[in-house]
Amino acid sequence: MSSSRLDNQRVIRAPHGTELSCKSWLAEAPLRMLMNNLDPDVAERPQELVVYGGIGRAARDWDSYDRIVAALRDLNDDETLLVQSGKPVGVFRTHADAPRVLIANSNLVPRWANWEHFQELDRKGLAMYGQMTAGSWIYIGSQGIVQGTYETFVEAGRQHYNGSLTGKWILTGGLGGMGGAQPLAATMAGACMLAVECRPSSIEMRLRTGYLDRHTASLDEALAWIQEACAKGEAISVGLLGNAADVFPELARRAAADPSVRPHIVTDQTSAHDPVNGYLPQGWTLEQWDAARESDPASVAAAARKSMAVHVEAMLAFHAMGVPTVDYGNNIRQMAKEEGVENAFAFPGFVPAYIRPLFCRGIGPFRWAALSGDPEDIYKTDAKVKELIPDDAHLHNWLDMARERIHFQGLPARICWVGLGQRHRLGLAFNEMVKSGELKAPIVIGRDHLDSGSVASPNRETEAMKDGSDAVSDWPLLNALLNTASGATWVSLHHGGGVGMGFSQHSGMVVVCDGSDEAARRVGRVLWNDPGTGVMRHADAGYDIAIACAKEQGLNLPFLK
Amino acid sequence: MSSSRLDNQRVIRAPHGTELSCKSWLAEAPLRMLMNNLDPDVAERPQELVVYGGIGRAARDWDSYDRIVAALRDLNDDETLLVQSGKPVGVFRTHADAPRVLIANSNLVPRWANWEHFQELDRKGLAMYGQMTAGSWIYIGSQGIVQGTYETFVEAGRQHYNGSLTGKWILTGGLGGMGGAQPLAATMAGACMLAVECRPSSIEMRLRTGYLDRHTASLDEALAWIQEACAKGEAISVGLLGNAADVFPELARRAAADPSVRPHIVTDQTSAHDPVNGYLPQGWTLEQWDAARESDPASVAAAARKSMAVHVEAMLAFHAMGVPTVDYGNNIRQMAKEEGVENAFAFPGFVPAYIRPLFCRGIGPFRWAALSGDPEDIYKTDAKVKELIPDDAHLHNWLDMARERIHFQGLPARICWVGLGQRHRLGLAFNEMVKSGELKAPIVIGRDHLDSGSVASPNRETEAMKDGSDAVSDWPLLNALLNTASGATWVSLHHGGGVGMGFSQHSGMVVVCDGSDEAARRVGRVLWNDPGTGVMRHADAGYDIAIACAKEQGLNLPFLK
Ligand SMILES: NC(=O)c1ccc[n+]([C@@H]2O[C@H](COP(=O)([O-])OP(=O)(O)OC[C@H]3O[C@@H](n4cnc5c(N)ncnc54)[C@H](O)[C@@H]3O)[C@@H](O)[C@H]2O)c1
Ligand SMILES: NC(=O)c1ccc[n+]([C@@H]2O[C@H](COP(=O)([O-])OP(=O)(O)OC[C@H]3O[C@@H](n4cnc5c(N)ncnc54)[C@H](O)[C@@H]3O)[C@@H](O)[C@H]2O)c1
Repeated sequence: MSSSRLDNQRVIRAPHGTELSCKSWLAEAPLRMLMNNLDPDVAERPQELVVYGGIGRAARDWDSYDRIVAALRDLNDDETLLVQSGKPVGVFRTHADAPRVLIANSNLVPRWANWEHFQELDRKGLAMYGQMTAGSWIYIGSQGIVQGTYETFVEAGRQHYNGSLTGKWILTGGLGGMGGAQPLAATMAGACMLAVECRPSSIEMRLRTGYLDRHTASLDEALAWIQEACAKGEAISVGLLGNAADVFPELARRAAADPSVRPHIVTDQTSAHDPVNGYLPQGWTLEQWDAARESDPASVAAAARKSMAVHVEAMLAFHAMGVPTVDYGNNIRQMAKEEGVENAFAFPGFVPAYIRPLFCRGIGPFRWAALSGDPEDIYKTDAKVKELIPDDAHLHNWLDMARERIHFQGLPARICWVGLGQRHRLGLAFNEMVKSGELKAPIVIGRDHLDSGSVASPNRETEAMKDGSDAVSDWPLLNALLNTASGATWVSLHHGGGVGMGFSQHSGMVVVCDGSDEAARRVGRVLWNDPGTGVMRHADAGYDIAIACAKEQGLNLPFLK
Repeated sequence: MSSSRLDNQRVIRAPHGTELSCKSWLAEAPLRMLMNNLDPDVAERPQELVVYGGIGRAARDWDSYDRIVAALRDLNDDETLLVQSGKPVGVFRTHADAPRVLIANSNLVPRWANWEHFQELDRKGLAMYGQMTAGSWIYIGSQGIVQGTYETFVEAGRQHYNGSLTGKWILTGGLGGMGGAQPLAATMAGACMLAVECRPSSIEMRLRTGYLDRHTASLDEALAWIQEACAKGEAISVGLLGNAADVFPELARRAAADPSVRPHIVTDQTSAHDPVNGYLPQGWTLEQWDAARESDPASVAAAARKSMAVHVEAMLAFHAMGVPTVDYGNNIRQMAKEEGVENAFAFPGFVPAYIRPLFCRGIGPFRWAALSGDPEDIYKTDAKVKELIPDDAHLHNWLDMARERIHFQGLPARICWVGLGQRHRLGLAFNEMVKSGELKAPIVIGRDHLDSGSVASPNRETEAMKDGSDAVSDWPLLNALLNTASGATWVSLHHGGGVGMGFSQHSGMVVVCDGSDEAARRVGRVLWNDPGTGVMRHADAGYDIAIACAKEQGLNLPFLK
């Protein structure tokens, strides 16, 4: 690692309040959100500029960080800053309705779009892994992950269990940065969860932050707790210390013999996408693993892939028993398939299984943060959301639970999954609240790159598209271009994200509600057009829900005429 | 081929004159340029919507073409049409300074970015090959190619022959769509040319259009003509009927024995990038080739690759003799290398050899077309260019030669390579001429995707970058986003282009001078920012010329501070 990537002295926190250090809120907003991404309460390893997701960074190195900050402080209302893989490379004259920042991270010409080439560039100081919201400055901590997982479980409950997960339990693996959200999401959704995790510190972390309820190293004890809770209709989560490649097959054997010990949903969030750093091989201790990753990565990868195949065979066994089983976006099926498990893709990924119907209506991980730093500003927007969308009990329930159970990290923020026709109404209302002084300072509104119209990722968000267009990445590129044309405050185009080099292209956008009439016009356009591209993309692929939504909302899609 | 791709009844020509069929010139301009790309005097196979470059299309199929036309006729001044691989997919509300059209063509998630997957999508009607200016509606016929080739030869003359090619001769292969520009470019640059071409019809076509002077099937005769012309200081071009894989080695043997028969520059423009359709194997007749391409493509490819290796071995021999030898962007070195020619990359590509110093100053294939259809409008702009850039004899010479020797195809158009600081001055002047009525109708200004800041293509435009950043495609993405933010009239993002699937990502832009003050502001921004990104990209890579240019022109590049 280049030395300018590590600085143990720095502690970054976004300024709160209404005093500007930039020339406008449109520059102040990306400045604060960049800083917020590196807040020690938000980022995984802020001294290395790592926000989340393995090596997902907010800036290429500390020198680049300083220059970004300086450029934003100096930025005029008719200028745009360009950021290339975390490094500020140019300031150009544009106009008031243009984005203030344009970002491209980790993009490589396809033939070279692999981890080896990326790492070579990274070592030379020419690259940065942007992940999704790390390099695009709109990560909001665990909250964003909890709701995505919650929505997935709730939808699974709708499809398989008549809308209720009471008395049901979910088997999974992995309690890391993302996976750690699973137990909280499960209990919020009313289900019990058994999560197999091999690293004691990961379990402890989730207990400490209230994401996980109990832990044990005994499968029998874990099952007993789960079955007791299920019987009572209570939702508890249990972390089981062990290797998923051992526990999943053992449970599959028991479940085959005794249907009463069958889980109701099976999934996994170990970091299978990275066979060197993400998956503990069977029979290895953590110490062996940590040592060999440095000294002999090839042997780790080979052993890990073998264990993943065993792991996926067990998932296939559950699937064959009729237990709803899904890949949770970690590419474990691909790994098993490459290891000889021919039918690894027999069970689906979570997007086609549960999320796509939402995407068809432009529903996705809409989120916002209060630049004032005042939690009251978020509570007021929570109330506004309920007021504007009065008849969505699920949404109200989510907002109540989120307020109660999720602590803010860094700038107060909220996420809620809403769609085309709702997003711009919320944005315009928030802008009004800033204008009237009801909120103390402007609000930024953004979303994950994992959204309806913003990503091409054939093993995840665009798996098994109806027309076979999984790998067509024109769509996220058009999304980014249109958000730029609509006046988003910053727009980003990334490659790799959660599934790694070569496997996805995706775009992000953030728009600022500074209370001005110009902002209202921009917010109205951006928050309509952005989910609109999602409905368009799914309508083009032939999904009836999307076609109906497009007609109902009056989208102008020439191919439907 | 889907039947809606072939329509032998259609003859498309852009309307001329000042009557609008759209609601504004900003929609009329893309409409006319789309139609112009399909003009039978411009396009290679207009009935199939193929403009140039193998299968580079202007629209996905005729139904899409009709819907694009309808959408443009209906487009309002605050709306933007989205085109996805040649199909119109949405019209969204933006604003007056936003592009009227945003285009993404042929983009695929990297792991799937290969010909096989593209062809599968193409067969399903889900894809279109956009090439560079085909799917982005700014192809202007052979003129665009002639000048690029001319600039390359002139620069080679500067570097190797003290600025004069008088008495020198160039050896090449291929007189196809692009390659056919070589003999005219060579003689314009003052050199003789010997071009080996295996297909009589390709030779005849170049003779007929005045691009080629003479032809023969005898190497001895060809050499005699060339040597006589060289001795007299005359520039002539000779088409030699034959197989380059036979002729190049034979010439290399003679040149090794007798330095007086050495060519002064060696290159090649057979379609080596496509081993099935682009390169005649040694010992095969054209009839055998044409038949086997359908019946047994694999055997054609294998034989062609073998011959390419022989061909490249001969080029390496010239290189070893000290003859300046370059790959002209057809990937023939890659093919030979895959065939076992270890040192295939010993001679450079044409960009690092001759074009990069121009790119460092933002100089590239700037072009414009007269929507009036009146050649006088172009002649007036020619004069304006000379007036505004009075001291560039090379440029004046080019304009004089172009007017004299190149016939307009479709809408009258001009190309000239100019750089940062010049482009926006020309654009503003043209807009003034429209405003004052000096020109009969608006002018569109665009460029090839092969330009300074708009392409990542490690075997061509970004080969051997100083810092090793050849494959980083953040740059063309930022270019497209910035052009969108600056108010270009249409902006495009493509994949594949001239080097094929997986090998490049690139962006295009066109801006309209409609004579309004708003257009002046947009033109001023776009034509500064667009070449500005090229200077920025090369300055970031460490080129002194680019760093000096950035400083001289006052670019705001945070990494230089
Ligand atoms: N679907 C989505 O939206 C989505 C979102 C984020 C991440 N992901 C994917 O989910 C995976 C997990 O992400 P993360 O951020 O939590 O990763 P992480 O690396 O922080 O956590 C992985 C956890 O798995 C544990 N683990 C590894 N091997 C194990 C084994 N054999 N048995 C039991 N536990 C084991 C590790 O100790 C670690 O705690 C990644 O592949 C990621 O790409 C999916
Ligand atoms: N450097 C650039 O800017 C640039 C621009 C355009 C095209 N190109 C590349 O140049 C190549 C040529 O492009 P094009 O549009 O002229 O292609 P084309 O297919 O129209 O023409 C190729 C010509 O080569 C001839 N040919 C094939 N095999 C031969 C052989 N063994 N010996 C002699 N002649 C042979 C064919 O008969 C044909 O006339 C392509 O690979 C293209 O990608 C480079």
